[in-house]
This record gives sequence, C-alpha cells and structure tokens, in this order.
Amino acid sequence: MGAQESRWSLGTMPKGGKNLITDVPGVKVGHCTLQNGSVQTGVTSILPHGGNCFREKCPAAAHVINGFGKSAGLVQVQELGTLETPILLTNTLSVGTAMTALVRRMLAENPDIGVTTGTVNPVVMECNDGHLSDIRGLHIAEEHAFAALDAADADFEEGAVGAGTGMCCYGLKGGIGSASRLVTLDGKTYVLGALVLSNFGALGDLMIAGEPIGREIRAKQAAEQQPDRGSIIAVLATDLPLSHRQLSRIARRAQNGIARTGTITGNGSGEIVLAFSTANRVPHDPESPTLAVEILHEDYMDHAFRAAVEAVEESIVSSLLHAKTNGETAKKIRALSEYL
Amino acid sequence: MGAQESRWSLGTMPKGGKNLITDVPGVKVGHCTLQNGSVQTGVTSILPHGGNCFREKCPAAAHVINGFGKSAGLVQVQELGTLETPILLTNTLSVGTAMTALVRRMLAENPDIGVTTGTVNPVVMECNDGHLSDIRGLHIAEEHAFAALDAADADFEEGAVGAGTGMCCYGLKGGIGSASRLVTLDGKTYVLGALVLSNFGALGDLMIAGEPIGREIRAKQAAEQQPDRGSIIAVLATDLPLSHRQLSRIARRAQNGIARTGTITGNGSGEIVLAFSTANRVPHDPESPTLAVEILHEDYMDHAFRAAVEAVEESIVSSLLHAKTNGETAKKIRALSEYL
Amino acid sequence: MGAQESRWSLGTMPKGGKNLITDVPGVKVGHCTLQNGSVQTGVTSILPHGGNCFREKCPAAAHVINGFGKSAGLVQVQELGTLETPILLTNTLSVGTAMTALVRRMLAENPDIGVTTGTVNPVVMECNDGHLSDIRGLHIAEEHAFAALDAADADFEEGAVGAGTGMCCYGLKGGIGSASRLVTLDGKTYVLGALVLSNFGALGDLMIAGEPIGREIRAKQAAEQQPDRGSIIAVLATDLPLSHRQLSRIARRAQNGIARTGTITGNGSGEIVLAFSTANRVPHDPESPTLAVEILHEDYMDHAFRAAVEAVEESIVSSLLHAKTNGETAKKIRALSEYL
Amino acid sequence: MGAQESRWSLGTMPKGGKNLITDVPGVKVGHCTLQNGSVQTGVTSILPHGGNCFREKCPAAAHVINGFGKSAGLVQVQELGTLETPILLTNTLSVGTAMTALVRRMLAENPDIGVTTGTVNPVVMECNDGHLSDIRGLHIAEEHAFAALDAADADFEEGAVGAGTGMCCYGLKGGIGSASRLVTLDGKTYVLGALVLSNFGALGDLMIAGEPIGREIRAKQAAEQQPDRGSIIAVLATDLPLSHRQLSRIARRAQNGIARTGTITGNGSGEIVLAFSTANRVPHDPESPTLAVEILHEDYMDHAFRAAVEAVEESIVSSLLHAKTNGETAKKIRALSEYL
Repeated sequence: MGAQESRWSLGTMPKGGKNLITDVPGVKVGHCTLQNGSVQTGVTSILPHGGNCFREKCPAAAHVINGFGKSAGLVQVQELGTLETPILLTNTLSVGTAMTALVRRMLAENPDIGVTTGTVNPVVMECNDGHLSDIRGLHIAEEHAFAALDAADADFEEGAVGAGTGMCCYGLKGGIGSASRLVTLDGKTYVLGALVLSNFGALGDLMIAGEPIGREIRAKQAAEQQPDRGSIIAVLATDLPLSHRQLSRIARRAQNGIARTGTITGNGSGEIVLAFSTANRVPHDPESPTLAVEILHEDYMDHAFRAAVEAVEESIVSSLLHAKTNGETAKKIRALSEYL
Repeated sequence: MGAQESRWSLGTMPKGGKNLITDVPGVKVGHCTLQNGSVQTGVTSILPHGGNCFREKCPAAAHVINGFGKSAGLVQVQELGTLETPILLTNTLSVGTAMTALVRRMLAENPDIGVTTGTVNPVVMECNDGHLSDIRGLHIAEEHAFAALDAADADFEEGAVGAGTGMCCYGLKGGIGSASRLVTLDGKTYVLGALVLSNFGALGDLMIAGEPIGREIRAKQAAEQQPDRGSIIAVLATDLPLSHRQLSRIARRAQNGIARTGTITGNGSGEIVLAFSTANRVPHDPESPTLAVEILHEDYMDHAFRAAVEAVEESIVSSLLHAKTNGETAKKIRALSEYL
Repeated sequence: MGAQESRWSLGTMPKGGKNLITDVPGVKVGHCTLQNGSVQTGVTSILPHGGNCFREKCPAAAHVINGFGKSAGLVQVQELGTLETPILLTNTLSVGTAMTALVRRMLAENPDIGVTTGTVNPVVMECNDGHLSDIRGLHIAEEHAFAALDAADADFEEGAVGAGTGMCCYGLKGGIGSASRLVTLDGKTYVLGALVLSNFGALGDLMIAGEPIGREIRAKQAAEQQPDRGSIIAVLATDLPLSHRQLSRIARRAQNGIARTGTITGNGSGEIVLAFSTANRVPHDPESPTLAVEILHEDYMDHAFRAAVEAVEESIVSSLLHAKTNGETAKKIRALSEYL
Repeated sequence: MGAQESRWSLGTMPKGGKNLITDVPGVKVGHCTLQNGSVQTGVTSILPHGGNCFREKCPAAAHVINGFGKSAGLVQVQELGTLETPILLTNTLSVGTAMTALVRRMLAENPDIGVTTGTVNPVVMECNDGHLSDIRGLHIAEEHAFAALDAADADFEEGAVGAGTGMCCYGLKGGIGSASRLVTLDGKTYVLGALVLSNFGALGDLMIAGEPIGREIRAKQAAEQQPDRGSIIAVLATDLPLSHRQLSRIARRAQNGIARTGTITGNGSGEIVLAFSTANRVPHDPESPTLAVEILHEDYMDHAFRAAVEAVEESIVSSLLHAKTNGETAKKIRALSEYL
C-alpha cells in the first residue's frame, strides 16, 4: 500500500519496506497511461527480474478463480510451470496488441526465437474498462506496451494509472494496488508481494477490515445495488523457493484475500491469478540434464498462504485508496477517499 | 441455522423456512453419533431425494479448494456430472468403512449392480476428529453408516452430532451447520441450501459478520495462536436447474463463504465441496438417446452465487453456535457460546 | 479427407458426404494463404454456424493434451461452456494480431459490445511454422484474418493452405486436414467432424492404419531420428446435442486419434482441442431465466467417442496426403505422397 | 513383459533387466489371489520403496483419462504432490475394505498418525471384475490386502493374478501386466516402469504393434462387437528425478500407450494413472524449512515420455499374453494365447 496510511489495519504479518510487490528483489513495475477524454486506459508491466526472462525463466503457476476473462499465456504456464516474459496488464480488447508487442520485444532480445529455438509465450492479463473508457476504440498501440515495459522500476504509482486508469471496483474508482508481506524462516527473511488490477464487485458488498463500508456508502448515495461485474487480476511474486505446484497453491489463496473484501465473485468477473517465484530460475539452455534446486517443505506453506491472503486483500484496498475520482457527468466514478 | 437466532446477521438474501439444507424439497439429513469417553465421532448422511439415487441420478459437481483430504467418489462425479448415492460424512480414517456400507446399501436396493449393469460410485467425505476422538481406534462400523442413512429426515440437529461430534473449528467446538437461501426468478422460488462439517481454522482468524471475535476470544484466553488446521466439507443442494458446469461454479463460491469467516485455508485443511441439483434427474436406464432438460441461463447465476456464499458462511457460524463444549481436561474444546 | 482416396482405410464408422468438418450443417471453413519465398504462413477460419456467433453461442469445451502452446480464449470457453466467435488458426507469433482482427470483426457486427453489454472472447489457436516460414517477420496482418473469415465456405481445401501453409508433421509436409463420421441414433443421423492443423511428430513414429510407414520412409532417407516437435490443433464440431461436459469428454478422445498415428506427444508439442456443438445454441440475451435444451444421455457417448477418434486420426492422415512438398534446398519438407 | 517373448516388438527403447516395474530400484509388487468358483478376484500391492512410505514420501501425480472409476486417494496426491502409502489395486466394490486395511497397516507402522501428526492418505485403485467374479459378494477382506502387502517382492507374476484375477481386456482375459524402459542421460541410466490392471476395450479394436489382431480374432469368432467397457489402471514408477508437475506430464502419456492398443476409451472405462518417482523423497518431518532436490530439465522429458508410452503399451500386451483362459461355460473368457 505504499507509504499511504489508512484507518484500516489489514492482517497481522510484517510488511515489506515499500509494502509493494517490488519489495521482492528484482521485481519491477511500469505504467503507460492514456487519459484523454473518452480514452481512459493504459498498460502496466511487471518484470519478474532484472535479467532476460526468456533465458532465465521463473517457476510460475496460474489459477482461474472465475474464467470470464481473456488473459493469454496461461496454458503454457500451467504445462511447463514457468514464466518466460514480463507480464502485461491492459484492457480486455487490447490483449492481442499487447501480445504482439511483447512478442516483438522478446524477438528483439532473443535472436534465436523462431530460428534455432522454439517460440515464446507472452503473458497478458486484462480487465474491462469499458465503463469509463472507449474500449471499442482499441486505443492501445504496441508503443504503449513498450512504454510500460521501459518504465518498469522498483518505485511505481498505484491507483488509476497504467492498466488501472479506467477500472472501477465495488462501484468506486479502482485500478492498480499493491502490498507485500515478510516471511522469516530459519533466520532468513523472504518477501511475498501482490499487485492487483481491481475492477470488480458491487458497492453494497464492500467490506474493509470487517467494516461494511460499501453498505454505508450506498446508504449515503441512496443508490440501487449494482450487479457484481468486472474482474480482478492478481499477480503474486515471491523469493520463497516454491515449485509450480506450490505457487498454484498460493495462487488459490488469492480468492480468500479477494473474498475478505466482500465480493461473491460474480458471473461476469474474470478473476485470474498468476504467481511466480524468483528463486530457482530455470535456464532456457540447460548445462546438464538435471538442475539442483531448493524447495520449501510443505509444512511451511502456511506462512506463504497467510502472506498471499493478506497481500491480496491489502492490494485491493490500496487500489481503492489510491485511485482518484474519474470520468465525467453520468459516468463519473467516485474515489473511496471521497467518503472517508 | 435452524431456529436459533444469533447476534449476527449474515447476508442479505431471504432464508428458507427452516434455514437448513433440507429446505430443498426432498433433501434429508441423518446422524449417527458415537459418544463414549475417548470415542467422539459419528456419521452423517445427506439424501439428495426421496427416491432411488442410483436409478434417478442428480446433476452434481465437486470442487477441491485444498486437497489435503481423503474424500472418495469425486473422480466419477466430475466425469459423469452426477451423484448416484447418498453422501456420507465421517472421520478421515473411517472413509473405507463408510464406502463399504454405502456399497452394501446400494447393492441391496439395486439387484442389477455388478450383474446386468455396472458398479456404483459411493461418495464419502471426511474431516479429522483426532483431537477429540480416538481416531486410531477405527470405531465407525458399517452399522453406524446404516443408522445415519436410516435416520435421514427433513429435520435434523446441528452442532456436535453425527460426523460433527468430534470436530473443532477455529479452536472452538465445530461440527455440523446448515443454512439456506431463496432465489426467486420469474415468479418461481427456488432454494439453495448448504451443510458443512466444520473442522478448520485458527482461533485468532475467526471473523463473524466482520467482527474479529476470534481475536477477542484469544485475548481473553491469553492463548498462543494455534496453526490453521483441520478441514471443512461443504455440501450444496438446490432445486435450481443447474448443469454440472454450473454446479461446479457455485461449488467454487463456497470458498468465498468460508473465507468470510477469516481463514487463510491452511496447508493441512481438506476443503472440499460437493454441489448437486434436484432438478433434471438423469435416469440410469434412459428411454431414448436424448433427454429434455431445463437449464438456468448464465446471466442468472449471480443469484445462485450469492446464495451459495451466504449459505456456506452462515452454515459455518451455525455449526459454531450449535456445538456444545466437548472433551475432557487438557483436550477440552469450548463452544463459541461460552464467550458470547 | 475430402474426395481423395488413399490406400488406407481408417476406422469403421460411416463418413459424411464430404468427409469434412463442414458436413456438420452450418459449419464453414476459410483460408488466407501467404506464400512468397521465406513467407509460408496463413490464417484459417472455422465458423460454427451461419448466424451471429456472439448472439447465438455454441456449447463448447477445450482440452489441453500438452500445453506447450499459446492458444487464446480457452479460459472463458471452459468457464462459460460456450464459443461466441469464429475460431482462427494461425502461426504462433501471430495470435495477437488474429485476436485483434477477430475483436474488430465482432465489434463491427455487434455495436453493443463494450457499451451496453460486456466484451467478447476471441478464440485463436496456433502452431509454429518457423521451420518453413519467417515466423519472426510477423507477416500476418489483420487483413489476412479478415480474408480467411470472408472466405469461409462449406467447401475448402486441405493440405498446405491457410494456417497450414508452413506446417510440418512427422518430418513431412503437414497442414490442414479434415474428416467426418456419422452417428445414427433412434433413426436420426448426426455428424461429428474434425479439422486439424498438423505440425507434430517425429518421422520414425508415423503409423497409418497400423503400418509403420514413418520407419519405412526413414530407412529410405537414412535420416537421423528428429525430435518430436511442433504441435497439433484439433477442432471438433458436431450437431449432436452435447453439453460442455460431454464436449470436454469428446475433446479428450482426440488424444486417442492423435496417438493412433504414432506420436509420443513430445515435450514441445502444443496439443490443444476445441469441441463445439451446433445444437442447443445459447442466446446472448435470454428471453427467460431458463432454457429448454436436449442433451444426449451418457450411455450413447461411445458413438461420439468413436467418431471423434476416427475423425481426428483421419484428419491427420488427410493433412499429410493433401500437403505438397514445400520449402527450398536445405529446408525442403517433402510430402508423404512422394513416398507412396 | 517379464521373460516371455512374443511375436511383437513394441517400441524402440532399451528394456530393464526384468522388463517389469520392479526394475525401478526399491519397487516391489505383491499379489493375493482369490479363485474359487464364482469368486475370481484379488488384491495387488505396489510398494514404492523399501522404507516407510509415510516417513519418506515419494513425489507423485495422478491423471484421470476417463473418470468412470472409484479410485481413492487421488485428491491429496494432486494437492501435495506425494504418495505416502503403498498402492493397492482391487475390484471396484472392495475399495473401501482395501482403504481400511491400508489405514490399519499404516497406523501400525506409525504410532504418531492421528495423535501427534495428521492422518494418512491411502491410495487404492480398481477395476470392475464383475463379469467373471461375484463382485456383489464383497469377498475381499482386510486380510487379503495384508497378504498382498506382505507378498511384495521384486519378482512377481503377471496375468490373471491378484487384482487381475477376474479382469477382461478387449474381450480376452486381461489382468496384471508390466514392462520397463531405460533412459540414459549424461552417462547415468534411469528406469521407468509401468504396471497395468487391464480390464478395458472391445475385441474388434485390439491392435498390437499395428496388427489388427482383434479384428482377426473377431472374424474367427463370428462374434458381435461388444461395447468398449471396463477400465484400466496404470501405475508408472521411475527413479528419474521428476517433480509432481513432470510426473503429471508422464502420467498423461499413458493415454498414448493405451490408445496404441486400439481403444476409443469408452464411456464406461475408468482410466486412471498414478506416477511416482523414487528420487527426491520428501520427509514427513523436515529438518529444515527447505529441501535440496534435483529436477530433470524439461528439455529431457521426451525420453521419459517415450518410455512411458512404450512401457504402458507393452504392459497391456503383456497382461494379455500372460493371462490364462478363465471362467466357466457362458462366461468363459479366452486368453489371447489361444489365438496365436
């Protein structure tokens, strides 16, 4: 949740220095924001490490909480258990453009792709920002994806920026949120961070730290309950040495974190989680048939689970706290902060 | 939650007449309770309808939230999309005995099984009651399963009865809980009911209707946080005309209901959901190659999702409210009601 | 396998009139082929029915045999059980462009998408034609996808056309192949058709109707065994009234059909199946909360399974029989027909 | 396929010394056979290693090809990625009894189960031997499971023994079959072995090494095609250092091996695969939070895939070649050897 303090305390575990996904060493996040009248959209990038992701892949896993979504690249992540590109987030109808941009960037960095080695699996995830933005206009161009990749840094903004620019969450302004938790095992401290693109939920359902604030705001607005729609993407990063199977297990805990904010996970919500570990990188070109790796024993997974639940919950709240009121007249979506 | 009123109001949807899974027409529940010193265990049966389940199967789906569990019969439910026996709940190490009893009962009712038709798929689900009961003693006999089947009725007890006798939930006494919700579509009212066998969670995590009551109780006890262990089984029944795929979707919403009570879904928790519909029964011996069925349009699923989330949440709370303090001296587990 | 006869007889079931996927009433296939020196690629479209797929969705299911692939749109097909766009096939690195083209086409046909209704889920599947084509050049443009959609017809070519232009299969020239089988139940005849994009297998493994022809050809070539690489996409269409779950079951039988041709399903093979039914269309805008549908009873599924196995097997053989030798000098890939 | 030679040569890889699953160091197999008039059934055990499986778990994965089956224990194998008991095979309706026996044996060996540690996950797999045996009689008792466990040895019989006693495969006598393949990587030789319980297929579909022998036998018998029914269980063992995800991948290749023998994988077939690795054992009580393990790089998986396909194919053929004609008069099932 960055430096911003709120009236709510979420969870019990210690937080990372920035309380951002970038507390995981090497992880970087970048935004490209398009904000011009009816165009309220963008791209956000998440770089798993500072090197070449294709040459040094990260163990990874995806989990689909509710599959009303168009994210690309998950099939291969599940089969091979690795992430080999940065992750891009954008609006639903721009997934194709972001994929092509990511392919082009990977081709530029890896001249062997498609020649002496196979192809590359771009991972692009999305939510529908059509309420605030002219999503039919297909305004995202490849250059915006490149800009988001190039902007990646350990410091980054939350709220209505990048892919989060036009998103709505619980009837309020949503977008990008992030948080992190620390896990100390045998004297060594690891980080688990989350970043969400929040665009889901019905106002009346919003709970923060047990407080039914959505119901309270709705009472003030005298508004009708809106359907639970939209989606959420959650990305989890950690330097804990987790296998694909274990990453799949922490990805499933994102649903607990999301549910803590009150949603019923509506029919129309694309709720998709991608988790990766920066430990145990897998070389594209192995030096020998077997790799020596270190793996967390299952008895210690509860630490990672709790970290995942807390970090996802707090990331959602952080997206709401950072996002500013957006949109015009009939389509204006207010920020949570207006009601606090 | 039966007739018992509590200080908490959970959810917004109207409740069925009994606020029990048996509000779904035809569904019955029966218990057999073994309570004798170190033996604190039992069997609970759930009958999907009043007829012969093997001859008239129910559309069904299973979902594994966390698979640290030993439930039997789920593979075939997922493949064929039907439930063809009553469901039995019992302790972890008695699944085999309960399966054999269920097989024997089905053989008695269906002389063609294993002769002129195939076999039968018994569904048995479980939690570990080893903290309060001598689970190593394998005290469940087939006769106890028969007794639970024979006791099935539209009225049934909640709390520390049947399979719930020895269960602990959030460090308090858990067991059987149930609740239901009504969905009215186009003038027709349907019911969705839940029944849980609650045996999961760490006390400090318990939230009820947003109130951090587990933290409050723990403060009174000055107790150490115990690990999140144990499991939960949730059974969802409805007369909504849902397909296997749709039942799988509502089964996944059980996780939201469970998460609302605060748990992180610990490593050791077997959290398994089985959902069935009493509409559109599938005959074992079809009269023609195709069946005419009625299926809910996806646009209306949110009603079922909200009902599932609320019913599961309330079932867990109900199990805590109905269970009485159990166990002796060092192993005594207190009821939630002692702290209210 | 179209009109072409071969020396092999595959399977025992009756074939459709064209022995093509387009024997399923309403299904159409179109190609756009790019063939110019180092550019040997293209796009193939499969239209599920003659109407607007978004307004009248088809029950559908996807199955991943081996997920080393980049196909898009499968997550939503699995969640909602429907296909709402034509299917496009192309090369691996052009999936993004094909997605964007498909989105643009669907937007043009449906002015409510992204305004008064949600978004749309484009389904694009792929194989890597990098051996014969300059895949790094990203030569597919949106216009090629439109051309493939516009060319869709009940009659279509097989072999090295459309998406199949640059594909290799068992070390021979592969590409597009198709076949169909008839199922008569209770006096009514249904069709199940398959279309494959074949790009997989090691020459030495090729079996056709039990004949180890790959081993024989390899002996003639005195060639080294090449690794099993590349991929296969299989699309199954039927007018049998199958549910999502049942379509998932027939999709899984594609693996039997593929395995009959000898492959071990290599590590690098993206083997992905999409099955849809043209019966029981699902309206985007329902007139009432429930739909009346007709569903095949499970006891009759074996007919569909056998049809799927035979149609996929024959489609692969047909792709080999129709494809012409392609490529230049060092990269020349010979047609199977050269060895017969 | 043990010492027996056949007229067919299956596959191209080198075979282990015994050509049995027990070529994998430490793996043992035992049978208990019940053969007395209408009772034609039994139990087969597979011990993953010579030690205590609960204390030293094996990485493992399950795969369901077709889930018309009642195998127990797969949920936890998938979640935790480990096997912690021997595997028992028996008839469908005796799964419960075998589970209870396995629980009892594990309790005897591990006094902490259910007291100071959690419970145990018994893995029991099954096929329906009801055609040749009085399956309704529930003739398997716990003592038979103990006998199968106690009989486990590196040498074991194939054919109509143990769980295979009453099984039929492709209309011929089936049962237990086994085979193995060697994989040499970087100068080190590993073994992958398979054991099947074969009880599936329609006679006319049987193919061996490409020869349509089922069709030929059927012609001799002038018999009607029988439906594809029954099931197959395949167990894969290896000392290759494979992760759960990788074991899941080789388990999926069992379908290729099965399909090579001609089946369409009928509706009524429970086709389930369990794969485990004896490398990288996971201690029940870890000494530290992380484990050092060695994992095969994905680029080398094709060796394991080919081994799995060949070993499963040959195991099925071996079960047919070893099984003797069984049953009386109307229900007599002939051995393949009678037709050779």
